[in-house]
Amino acid sequence: MHGIALIGAGRIGRIHAANIAANSRLKLVSVVDPTDAAAELASQYGANVATVDEVLADPAIHGVVIASSTDTHLDYSLAAAQAGKTVFCEKPLDQDLERARGAGDALAAIGAQVFLAFNRRFDANFAALQARLKAGEVGALETLHIISHDPAPPPATYVATSGGIFKDMVIHDFDMARWLLDEPVTEVFSTSSVLIDPEIGKAGDVDTAKTILKTASGKICVISSSRRSGYGYDQRIEAYGSKGMIRAQNQLESTVETWGEGGASADRFQNFFLDRYAVAYAREIAHFADILDGAAPLIDQVDGIAALELAEAAQKSATEGVIVRF
Amino acid sequence: MHGIALIGAGRIGRIHAANIAANSRLKLVSVVDPTDAAAELASQYGANVATVDEVLADPAIHGVVIASSTDTHLDYSLAAAQAGKTVFCEKPLDQDLERARGAGDALAAIGAQVFLAFNRRFDANFAALQARLKAGEVGALETLHIISHDPAPPPATYVATSGGIFKDMVIHDFDMARWLLDEPVTEVFSTSSVLIDPEIGKAGDVDTAKTILKTASGKICVISSSRRSGYGYDQRIEAYGSKGMIRAQNQLESTVETWGEGGASADRFQNFFLDRYAVAYAREIAHFADILDGAAPLIDQVDGIAALELAEAAQKSATEGVIVRF
Amino acid sequence: MHGIALIGAGRIGRIHAANIAANSRLKLVSVVDPTDAAAELASQYGANVATVDEVLADPAIHGVVIASSTDTHLDYSLAAAQAGKTVFCEKPLDQDLERARGAGDALAAIGAQVFLAFNRRFDANFAALQARLKAGEVGALETLHIISHDPAPPPATYVATSGGIFKDMVIHDFDMARWLLDEPVTEVFSTSSVLIDPEIGKAGDVDTAKTILKTASGKICVISSSRRSGYGYDQRIEAYGSKGMIRAQNQLESTVETWGEGGASADRFQNFFLDRYAVAYAREIAHFADILDGAAPLIDQVDGIAALELAEAAQKSATEGVIVRF
Amino acid sequence: MHGIALIGAGRIGRIHAANIAANSRLKLVSVVDPTDAAAELASQYGANVATVDEVLADPAIHGVVIASSTDTHLDYSLAAAQAGKTVFCEKPLDQDLERARGAGDALAAIGAQVFLAFNRRFDANFAALQARLKAGEVGALETLHIISHDPAPPPATYVATSGGIFKDMVIHDFDMARWLLDEPVTEVFSTSSVLIDPEIGKAGDVDTAKTILKTASGKICVISSSRRSGYGYDQRIEAYGSKGMIRAQNQLESTVETWGEGGASADRFQNFFLDRYAVAYAREIAHFADILDGAAPLIDQVDGIAALELAEAAQKSATEGVIVRF
Repeated sequence: MHGIALIGAGRIGRIHAANIAANSRLKLVSVVDPTDAAAELASQYGANVATVDEVLADPAIHGVVIASSTDTHLDYSLAAAQAGKTVFCEKPLDQDLERARGAGDALAAIGAQVFLAFNRRFDANFAALQARLKAGEVGALETLHIISHDPAPPPATYVATSGGIFKDMVIHDFDMARWLLDEPVTEVFSTSSVLIDPEIGKAGDVDTAKTILKTASGKICVISSSRRSGYGYDQRIEAYGSKGMIRAQNQLESTVETWGEGGASADRFQNFFLDRYAVAYAREIAHFADILDGAAPLIDQVDGIAALELAEAAQKSATEGVIVRF
Repeated sequence: MHGIALIGAGRIGRIHAANIAANSRLKLVSVVDPTDAAAELASQYGANVATVDEVLADPAIHGVVIASSTDTHLDYSLAAAQAGKTVFCEKPLDQDLERARGAGDALAAIGAQVFLAFNRRFDANFAALQARLKAGEVGALETLHIISHDPAPPPATYVATSGGIFKDMVIHDFDMARWLLDEPVTEVFSTSSVLIDPEIGKAGDVDTAKTILKTASGKICVISSSRRSGYGYDQRIEAYGSKGMIRAQNQLESTVETWGEGGASADRFQNFFLDRYAVAYAREIAHFADILDGAAPLIDQVDGIAALELAEAAQKSATEGVIVRF
Repeated sequence: MHGIALIGAGRIGRIHAANIAANSRLKLVSVVDPTDAAAELASQYGANVATVDEVLADPAIHGVVIASSTDTHLDYSLAAAQAGKTVFCEKPLDQDLERARGAGDALAAIGAQVFLAFNRRFDANFAALQARLKAGEVGALETLHIISHDPAPPPATYVATSGGIFKDMVIHDFDMARWLLDEPVTEVFSTSSVLIDPEIGKAGDVDTAKTILKTASGKICVISSSRRSGYGYDQRIEAYGSKGMIRAQNQLESTVETWGEGGASADRFQNFFLDRYAVAYAREIAHFADILDGAAPLIDQVDGIAALELAEAAQKSATEGVIVRF
Repeated sequence: MHGIALIGAGRIGRIHAANIAANSRLKLVSVVDPTDAAAELASQYGANVATVDEVLADPAIHGVVIASSTDTHLDYSLAAAQAGKTVFCEKPLDQDLERARGAGDALAAIGAQVFLAFNRRFDANFAALQARLKAGEVGALETLHIISHDPAPPPATYVATSGGIFKDMVIHDFDMARWLLDEPVTEVFSTSSVLIDPEIGKAGDVDTAKTILKTASGKICVISSSRRSGYGYDQRIEAYGSKGMIRAQNQLESTVETWGEGGASADRFQNFFLDRYAVAYAREIAHFADILDGAAPLIDQVDGIAALELAEAAQKSATEGVIVRF
């Protein structure tokens, strides 16, 4: 059993704590959080409350799960890696590309083991889509559509410090695109609008965007982004290959349908990421156990930096009205 | 081109007239009907108005399509066959099993060519299901579910002369069951209720029934019958085989879906038989052209009699509360 | 927190143990099992190994979860109830109707709190269907189709001691039918075949059955049972009401579809009950916590006996070729 | 009844002839074609063979359906309009934007009634989507996805004279986008690749493209174009509004599904435009009858020119790597 410390006992930290406890290969040893949430979470799972320094000095702790605020991700990752811990770092690596690159170099220099937690790669649907694509089930991939619409927009106050829609939200889709395209992106075009909430516009951000990525061999990916769908959490991928198409649809609350005079109605989508990606979060933690057992991380800081590069390029394209080429 | 006479210019007669006109191998020569509908239909398609006697005596007429009232089906079929015409007879052959058997013998004695028009065998969905089943796509057939619910009940006045739900409505499903089971039925159980309209009960009929047919080898078929669905015309079949299942679903008015907060809603079903089986009616007429070209009828009076036997058995089972064995 | 003892550390016992541990209102105190599985399970969740007598005498134990072999269900339930414990009893109550009735009387006499664990009522799909039906979303229920086909047949050796398909497998569907029909069944007809494995026939059982239940008011329920589907675990319900239809479909492994020249293909169904009902098992345990908190059991021994009565009636109908009326 | 002349007896001309004959408000009077196909088609429907001059001089002809080669569309439309005929002109109006604009001015000057036959607006699915959108069923339209993938690429020889993918194929989608967006497009970006057939590239064209249109108010439309899908004719639209989403899915050959160990498989899509849009072609002709009865054309030369403008802009964007702004 690998001893684990959790830094951050907020909404996502609680999910990781439950999944760590349920995993027979891991043991939650310490919880770090400046609030009472630390003690609460620690007592529920028989763990200790600790400081970051105590965690880093504790030889019983092999892995550190960083689920604190975004601005702490880089520092804690570096510190944990320097202390010889295996790192699970929530996305994004950072909002600042230059800082992220610097930290990436430092992590590489010390041979750190960092798992960057882009949870969607662990969704059973997207993972199955990727596996079938990789297996050539529809021939060579040609184009890709990623649809990622949130159910409802965040408050404009959140938006103001979020880093913008591309770094905050589309970053997931850039990682997904990179994973599925499996070759470098050479061209980025994005166009965006404020259609949902004028306050988002006043906060300097947009709420709707369509982005096109193109690779050197001519593969093309479209990403559709919206802060508010009006019909639930819409998370779909369609991958067009030379011999057919693979797509992953949304998961519904139930399989129940009501048929009446007006037609048939299916249940609503799973509400938001905590529901839709509940299983993905558990599979992430299982992958972290694999890494502690010696496996290579499926995603690391290099992927985090690459996604951030695409986010910056898309933001530049949308803001300045230019096509960005690498 | 084969010359055709149409007897009966009512709702279903008009459909056959249009399909005959659109078929390049057939020519509508005469229309017979006691009402003005004959002249109207004849003029639309450049045909003559005629009497039954004139039709039977006309050497230009090779095929007779009988779409008049049910009580005339047997007499016109016999007369047309005796006059050397190929016969297209609307279902049912008759409401009276003994009369139908007698006519069946007479038709057989003169080697008549009679096509009995159970339209559902020509539905593209059910025909595809039957073909795949026959091809062994899911191994040997074991059990069968036929769902056949009308959108809304007929008036009780219609019910009073309809011959009852089994001969009037479920007769289609008995034919479908015989076609798909492909071996003799040896046991019939049916249970029924009046749940929709008490007037139907007062008219001596029922509006809801579930019937089980069993064959000598142990195959089992369930037929679900309702005079009113509340959600459109429900026409489905599920065939369970030793290696899987084939099913035919309902056809919708369109493929349009609306997704909102409450879930997704699909369009309504095609309203009733004139919509759902529009293509089937055209394919029936094409099969009649094949018969005039020399093909054997896919369905004939023997099938009509066999379906009527099952209808009588189910009626007896439901009415007397017994299991009927052959 | 309510202290819980688990009797039986087999396949289903392990599932209950995990769900008890994950439930913040329950604490797994003791595990009873004659094999090494007891110690293994106890150590994983920090519980003790105990005997039944020790469990019954332990004041720290408030609830007893009985997941041992079927022939022990009645005795352990009675003993636990007599010791003042709240009882969670796996289905079926017993294979013998007379014995079950006797125990039912005894349990009633001491005012026992017994939750009989028919897991399917806790499936999110079926529970949603029942709630919508109850809410009148499609008017009054008229007829019901329950489809329950296992993926693959058990070995004939299992069948020999199973009590037969009706008590072993269809018992779930009888409970579901009772729950949804919500009025007493007055008539039972069943017909069955051996179509899958002749060894099942030699063991005195059947592998395929269609059963019809009818209530006093004329509601009709069809249950389709098969020991082997050839296409996965098929668990569906269609409820036909006066204003429409509600149905619960199967859950798939994923929402991924592959589209090729031959059409579109969806993923396979969730494999069997451990997958399909994983969430239902957790919700069962949550309901047990509710009972320990004072709620009335949603299902108790009376329901277990009533389902057994329907199973005996169906078996008699299928075996003797009669309609059974209550 | 309105007398109709058909110019062009090729594949699409034959479809129009059948729909004219089946429409009780229209009568096919003359067929014009330099080949034997004219006589063949005329005899099937009791029409005459004629020259263009004879058609224009014939007072019995009220409407002229132009289904000849693209390079003749403008000249025949103008000549027919000058002769006082109502015009049904197959898409595209022309391959050359300047020529089309000139002809557009000339047609406007004489007050010509020209119906430009973009068939997809008459597809029941897309028409229902447009009607629901217009009715505000999902609030205000925000973004739009149009997917239009052909089943298999045309020969490179066809491509060479086709005018290129944007004018030949995507032109349909530009018209659809204009209809649904319902406000002027101000910005066009397109990126394209040769992924399917290098011969198409050698012919100076591309086979894969993604195009983004943006309007002044910030609505965004994505068009996905491919000359070969590998999975049939893919014709879908998703319209995202402020309160939900409406989408039109593909039509399948049948509703039959086969369920086996590997999952469920649905039937293939309707093969290509002759199948998918069979009903749309008949509804187009019915609309032409409406126009002859006095209705305004739903689509006219102005729409044809506007679609051509978008095609040129997309082609320029894709070829030169620029964003085109109006």
